[in-house]
Amino acid sequence: MPDLVLYIGNKNYSSWSLRPWIAMEAAGIPFSDRVIPFDFAAGNPAYKELSPTGRVPVLHHGKVRVWESLAIIEYVAELYPDAGIWPQDREARAQARSVSMEMLAGFQALRNACPMNIRRPPRAIDLPDGVMDDVARIEATWRDALQRWGGPFLFGPFSAADAMYAPVVNRFHAYRLTTDHSLLAYMDRIMAHPAWKKWEAAALAEPWTVPEDEA
Amino acid sequence: MPDLVLYIGNKNYSSWSLRPWIAMEAAGIPFSDRVIPFDFAAGNPAYKELSPTGRVPVLHHGKVRVWESLAIIEYVAELYPDAGIWPQDREARAQARSVSMEMLAGFQALRNACPMNIRRPPRAIDLPDGVMDDVARIEATWRDALQRWGGPFLFGPFSAADAMYAPVVNRFHAYRLTTDHSLLAYMDRIMAHPAWKKWEAAALAEPWTVPEDEA
Ligand SMILES: N[C@@H](CCC(=O)N[C@@H](CS)C(=O)NCC(=O)O)C(=O)O
Ligand SMILES: N[C@@H](CCC(=O)N[C@@H](CS)C(=O)NCC(=O)O)C(=O)O
Repeated sequence: MPDLVLYIGNKNYSSWSLRPWIAMEAAGIPFSDRVIPFDFAAGNPAYKELSPTGRVPVLHHGKVRVWESLAIIEYVAELYPDAGIWPQDREARAQARSVSMEMLAGFQALRNACPMNIRRPPRAIDLPDGVMDDVARIEATWRDALQRWGGPFLFGPFSAADAMYAPVVNRFHAYRLTTDHSLLAYMDRIMAHPAWKKWEAAALAEPWTVPEDEA
Repeated sequence: MPDLVLYIGNKNYSSWSLRPWIAMEAAGIPFSDRVIPFDFAAGNPAYKELSPTGRVPVLHHGKVRVWESLAIIEYVAELYPDAGIWPQDREARAQARSVSMEMLAGFQALRNACPMNIRRPPRAIDLPDGVMDDVARIEATWRDALQRWGGPFLFGPFSAADAMYAPVVNRFHAYRLTTDHSLLAYMDRIMAHPAWKKWEAAALAEPWTVPEDEA
């Protein structure tokens, strides 16, 4: 089988890149990553061969190109069916997919106001309309899942759903968006995960600063 | 196995509802649908039991609730693995998922400016910035897929990817957004599909008009 190569943006800022990266890393799947710093411009013809949308993340597997964070996760889950990327239980898996797609499609207010920023010291900011609605829906999602499936992660063991919400863990932490103790404990477990620690160390070592992502 | 019941919005306007509905109908999966007219308000507590997000579509399967159009499609694809909801070929399936997720996550300019409207007589409108970028990306996606996989649908036989783009077929038709003959022929094949015809007949029979969706 050809090697899996995941092209990603800056580890400090690229929230969509973190999702498939941490899903694959936490599941122990062998792959290498290549960071494309953020001047990576959508529509730059030099990048068309790299990624059909001109965006990262994109997975190369021999000649095959897979793009969109969650489509990459589905692809590797099919290649490694025993790696536990999705929960084993059918209902848990359905819920995990529903909340993962909610993340992919929504929460625009939160995503705009509070960019992922791994190195940011935690500090609250003034929040525009709509952000707290997004926060409330995510709190409810996490609370329901942790209660129903018993933790330690959303659907039991670490799964694709935790990966899809990993950038939100950073946002909740860096902008102090929740005070719920059970959720803070969940966030601590994510931020103590070896895969998170590895991403974080690489992010902290990056030289780039992107002013528009420093809210 | 308990019955599958799909709660959806108005057939004339609810683009997200059409996606899982036509995927299931085209694949011959037994289910019933229930239309919730559009005064359905997100956050109305009466609807919380129906749908965790307060939005449609939502699939009920006994006690299980599955929401988000594409998560519903993945769920029924697992229940009916031989129904051909996703393409058989692994690479085709990966591309189908990538473009389906692009649809779920993006094309906001097109979605805002050109609401799905089954009964609308075709007529061009003035288009705000960004719409033609979305149209160009979708044209490229359709062209590449039809060429690579040989038609008649995006990845060969009708699949989840055609279902995810079905509302765009209506938009391209109703607002005259493309002049590419190979794509107009693809759109004609979609609009001649028995599942499309069944949805269309029900949409035309609906009494409701939603002024903000009449662009
Ligand atoms: N929905 C896509 C979003 C991908 C995305 O927006 N990536 C950003 C980096 S986090 C990007 O490549 N931006 C470059 C650009 O659009 O020019 C996914 O889930 O992969
Ligand atoms: N990303 C969701 C979108 C669902 C959605 O926005 N549904 C609309 C109808 S097409 C809705 O329920 N709107 C009611 C509301 O938000 O109040 C999906 O793919 O299912």
